[in-house]
Amino acid sequence: MAESPKVRVSVAGATGYAGAELTALLASHPNAEIATLHGSARGETVPFERVHAALAGKSGPAVEPFAMDRLLDSRPDCVFLATPNETSAELAPALVASGKRVVDLSGSFRLKDAAEFERWYGFPHPDPALLETAVYGLTEWCNGELRAGRLVANPGCYPTSILLALRPLLPILEPGRAIVCDGKSGVSGAGKKSDVSFSFAELAGNFKAYGVGAHRHEPEIRQGLSLGDDAPLVFVPHLLPIVRGILSTLYVGFSSPMTPERLSAIYDDAYARAPFVRVRPHGDLPDLRAVVGTPRAEIGYRLLEGGRSAVVVSVIDNLLKGAASQAVQNFNRMYGFDETAGLA
Amino acid sequence: MAESPKVRVSVAGATGYAGAELTALLASHPNAEIATLHGSARGETVPFERVHAALAGKSGPAVEPFAMDRLLDSRPDCVFLATPNETSAELAPALVASGKRVVDLSGSFRLKDAAEFERWYGFPHPDPALLETAVYGLTEWCNGELRAGRLVANPGCYPTSILLALRPLLPILEPGRAIVCDGKSGVSGAGKKSDVSFSFAELAGNFKAYGVGAHRHEPEIRQGLSLGDDAPLVFVPHLLPIVRGILSTLYVGFSSPMTPERLSAIYDDAYARAPFVRVRPHGDLPDLRAVVGTPRAEIGYRLLEGGRSAVVVSVIDNLLKGAASQAVQNFNRMYGFDETAGLA
Amino acid sequence: MAESPKVRVSVAGATGYAGAELTALLASHPNAEIATLHGSARGETVPFERVHAALAGKSGPAVEPFAMDRLLDSRPDCVFLATPNETSAELAPALVASGKRVVDLSGSFRLKDAAEFERWYGFPHPDPALLETAVYGLTEWCNGELRAGRLVANPGCYPTSILLALRPLLPILEPGRAIVCDGKSGVSGAGKKSDVSFSFAELAGNFKAYGVGAHRHEPEIRQGLSLGDDAPLVFVPHLLPIVRGILSTLYVGFSSPMTPERLSAIYDDAYARAPFVRVRPHGDLPDLRAVVGTPRAEIGYRLLEGGRSAVVVSVIDNLLKGAASQAVQNFNRMYGFDETAGLA
Amino acid sequence: MAESPKVRVSVAGATGYAGAELTALLASHPNAEIATLHGSARGETVPFERVHAALAGKSGPAVEPFAMDRLLDSRPDCVFLATPNETSAELAPALVASGKRVVDLSGSFRLKDAAEFERWYGFPHPDPALLETAVYGLTEWCNGELRAGRLVANPGCYPTSILLALRPLLPILEPGRAIVCDGKSGVSGAGKKSDVSFSFAELAGNFKAYGVGAHRHEPEIRQGLSLGDDAPLVFVPHLLPIVRGILSTLYVGFSSPMTPERLSAIYDDAYARAPFVRVRPHGDLPDLRAVVGTPRAEIGYRLLEGGRSAVVVSVIDNLLKGAASQAVQNFNRMYGFDETAGLA
Repeated sequence: MAESPKVRVSVAGATGYAGAELTALLASHPNAEIATLHGSARGETVPFERVHAALAGKSGPAVEPFAMDRLLDSRPDCVFLATPNETSAELAPALVASGKRVVDLSGSFRLKDAAEFERWYGFPHPDPALLETAVYGLTEWCNGELRAGRLVANPGCYPTSILLALRPLLPILEPGRAIVCDGKSGVSGAGKKSDVSFSFAELAGNFKAYGVGAHRHEPEIRQGLSLGDDAPLVFVPHLLPIVRGILSTLYVGFSSPMTPERLSAIYDDAYARAPFVRVRPHGDLPDLRAVVGTPRAEIGYRLLEGGRSAVVVSVIDNLLKGAASQAVQNFNRMYGFDETAGLA
Repeated sequence: MAESPKVRVSVAGATGYAGAELTALLASHPNAEIATLHGSARGETVPFERVHAALAGKSGPAVEPFAMDRLLDSRPDCVFLATPNETSAELAPALVASGKRVVDLSGSFRLKDAAEFERWYGFPHPDPALLETAVYGLTEWCNGELRAGRLVANPGCYPTSILLALRPLLPILEPGRAIVCDGKSGVSGAGKKSDVSFSFAELAGNFKAYGVGAHRHEPEIRQGLSLGDDAPLVFVPHLLPIVRGILSTLYVGFSSPMTPERLSAIYDDAYARAPFVRVRPHGDLPDLRAVVGTPRAEIGYRLLEGGRSAVVVSVIDNLLKGAASQAVQNFNRMYGFDETAGLA
Repeated sequence: MAESPKVRVSVAGATGYAGAELTALLASHPNAEIATLHGSARGETVPFERVHAALAGKSGPAVEPFAMDRLLDSRPDCVFLATPNETSAELAPALVASGKRVVDLSGSFRLKDAAEFERWYGFPHPDPALLETAVYGLTEWCNGELRAGRLVANPGCYPTSILLALRPLLPILEPGRAIVCDGKSGVSGAGKKSDVSFSFAELAGNFKAYGVGAHRHEPEIRQGLSLGDDAPLVFVPHLLPIVRGILSTLYVGFSSPMTPERLSAIYDDAYARAPFVRVRPHGDLPDLRAVVGTPRAEIGYRLLEGGRSAVVVSVIDNLLKGAASQAVQNFNRMYGFDETAGLA
Repeated sequence: MAESPKVRVSVAGATGYAGAELTALLASHPNAEIATLHGSARGETVPFERVHAALAGKSGPAVEPFAMDRLLDSRPDCVFLATPNETSAELAPALVASGKRVVDLSGSFRLKDAAEFERWYGFPHPDPALLETAVYGLTEWCNGELRAGRLVANPGCYPTSILLALRPLLPILEPGRAIVCDGKSGVSGAGKKSDVSFSFAELAGNFKAYGVGAHRHEPEIRQGLSLGDDAPLVFVPHLLPIVRGILSTLYVGFSSPMTPERLSAIYDDAYARAPFVRVRPHGDLPDLRAVVGTPRAEIGYRLLEGGRSAVVVSVIDNLLKGAASQAVQNFNRMYGFDETAGLA
């Protein structure tokens, strides 16, 4: 069999937590070849083998300060943006205009509505037309659009864990009954922080809710469930004193009583052939350790109130399925590779 | 002013986590004098100063293996049981029959209904009559009954955090709308465990839901809210990778839209004079660190959906307000001491 | 008995970790009255009850931005400086000149030699004369000098743990044999840090040595043991993924073989009447939990090589015996109060 | 190129921490084929995909209760024993007698002297002759003996970290000067423990020394350095509140002053071609995070006292280079595969 030519890739934001995971994945991806790695425009050069513990002793391009000329000169086919929202919002349109395909791990191209974007992100969207054509890359719920997509908006970590668990249930949910999403995330979800409130001394042995009613992932979840602003969905994120992992506990009611068999069949329809979503038998709820360090989501559920409601628990590694490995899944689909390439 | 004579107290289960906290509190209580301390019947003698770091270098009675004769010979007025459910169920009736007053920190006298008790605790209750007369010691919601009580059932840790937050809201809750109680507890809540599933290597960096639909604190919460088995209340406890503290995130709907002022007034009515419950202003949600190591509960809330629903966050130290310091509050009320004696 | 009048105290740096602990101790000290609390000059006002969890619900002066006029107007008798080295170096001389007694928790007045100070702290000492008369407040090794002291330099946290363990052994150490001090500290020792290298995501599950051959506590340890620069002492600090506590493992050789009895007698001579130093029997090595949250040091030892050498383990809470509670011990000695006042 | 036939392997103790890591490595090893997996004789059957998070969704033999007949019937070429000392001591001779090659991860075949073995392990060695011929598998210091070895004793985790750092220095150490080995290990080093002293509630936020003068790894370290019982080496292990990783801080003196260049050359001679040992430049000390999750050891050093002494810091993942990945390195050498096979 002829070897497929490798896709040249660049990563901007390669030294952040998600960017480093992504770089490590791409470095051993059979169909990718790293063209350049970039940090912030005023950052330092970082040797390849210092980017991630898995790269120690290996050779590859150093991380260099970001410069658009330099990036384009390296002739990547596909650029991954693991950059802050403002940076991605600026870079993505320019890269797409230059003919590059882009996977953006920031929040800048996830919300379809530009007004909604401005309301939650605090600045006007620089390219509403591109926003409209961007593919929302919740891989398991994409079809051909990834194959053709020029710009893929990689979903947020909380939305990934919540949407994977709830989308199969949408047809059976009781209309008007509140959906409660109680999310708990490890600290790496906030990125590398020079902020006393993310210091070890403040967070160790502590636990708290944050951003109630104000978290940018809430409109993304509503959009992903096709729920308007008024639909009774509550999302409360909490900060766990651990580094990696998101566990979402979801409380839903059904239009008519469910059985374990029925729920199992519904999830099977959705994910039986998804290599990175594992749905457990009724009553078997996953813990974080089941997925940390892996590209998988795991989902468990338990019926309550005689089947009229359920608790659903969904877990992912926020840096992998919630960021880097989902970006690679999307990359694989964009270029027609096996969905598991580089992730097995 | 004449000094009040001290109440002689004994503690059974003094070497467990809650028992040790309780012993440390009683050792410096101005109105208590420790008669005897007891461990399990086959346990070892433990020097007083080894019971708790706060007791190092101090003198007092050693913890001795439990023996009813020995305990009664020490002539305590009041006996605290920080013992397993089965042990408390056996000891409390005998102690009350001997004329002792008893504060039981186990779950054996919390549920009023003996059939319900058997269903959740797995053994028939040995003294349903005593069960009926036991005082459920959620201190802030007790009145004269503590002053007269012979046997006080100290509430569970999850129920303490949840009932303190929800009882003031009962008159305004929307009937029939589900109450969601998403609880998160530190590991000490499970007691001293020789069990691989409570080992550091299994729990560090991990997080999970447990006991969904099967936790003994659920009927206690329902009873405390006067809700029947069928009322749509969901309680999902989770295990945090920290030692101490419970944070409960509560989701409730109201019959008619609330304002921050109205909710504030409702909580003020309930707790303005409670020395150990602090309710924060609208939108200011407490973290665990605010209460760990203290005898306080703190409650915060935030209105959603135009005031039709709210998130309420309630935090306590599970070993103090969730066990030992609430036991001392109850002791203070039983004997007419200032509620803060020994806890300031 | 006549009540002693209270000493008016001010704290600069009251919102840092050590400053907050100190404020909580002084707030309940029977012989102290808080005049003012200060943060940094450009800091915010912080309500008294937000300074420390133990102060919630209590009343006292708010923390206000530092201003020398305001501090002096509040007429404190004694000022505690829990401020950065540069700040203490500037404030202490002015305060002493204004007739205040000062307890400085920074490193600015610990080293007797001004040249040595400049070498390790990186700036010339502003008042070498005051440096000379400052009392090095390792409480258990001070005598009358604290009673008369105008300026007390509170020892560093590592030096406190190491000097308490080693000073009694100085007469029996083998000359010329290396003393190895392997120190491990919780993260709060570094103070409140807006620095990614002190973030939870970087430190959790991690462990490292730091500052080898370059830590400012090394000359302080040498000075405290009367060892010159050339004496073979090695000090390697490490950063533990915990918030509070220092454990120092010390390796020493003896001029002639020791017995457990002889070592026990030597430590007894030093500390039998010290309320806050506890020396354990031979072979009983303390862990951090024995002292965290307490004002005590605990020391254990074990002889090796037929008594020719020993391992000594010394533990303290870095924020208490390593900072705030030792400052209160020194305060008590300065004013002739019982050494345990406010610390029992 | 012709594919090499796969070696059939079995693992006893596959559900322990090291055994599970080993199973995950062997499952993706290009030259190994898993014949059977075994737990304890009275253990439960565990599905293949539950053994390790990396195996979820993959297929392979379930872990079955140990039975020698069953193991032999599965016709493995090589058996890995990740079993308790007593079990390995019993199984290894029988397996070798049956013609199997064995890699033993326990301590039962590490000490060459049967009397020494009995003194430290507490039972007489069942096969002193086999003890004598067993290969001590510190891979980087083995030559042809692994190729021919029937029984390989995989080194202990502390000895691996310490011997890799110190063996290159043996020719330059000052005779008679004490070598101090201050070791710190994550909790998984103790294995899966149903023991309250290894519970999360006891270890979180805690730190302690243990086993001073009594740890079985001390004679293994002495043997590996060719030091007698009387040589002045001190080894003090400590328990870190983390799951994985060992950091050893080593204090050594030299016969004559060293330079960074000289030390660098010495380490280069030892490890320039070792794929899994990385020696850092002078002054660059590794932290645990650099190696956790990898099969590498990393070593850093810093000269002190004008080059007459040094601090050496050595880090490994105790479950990988300290157990499972070193076992695979040894397996690769035994069968002539590339040393990095299955570990890249």
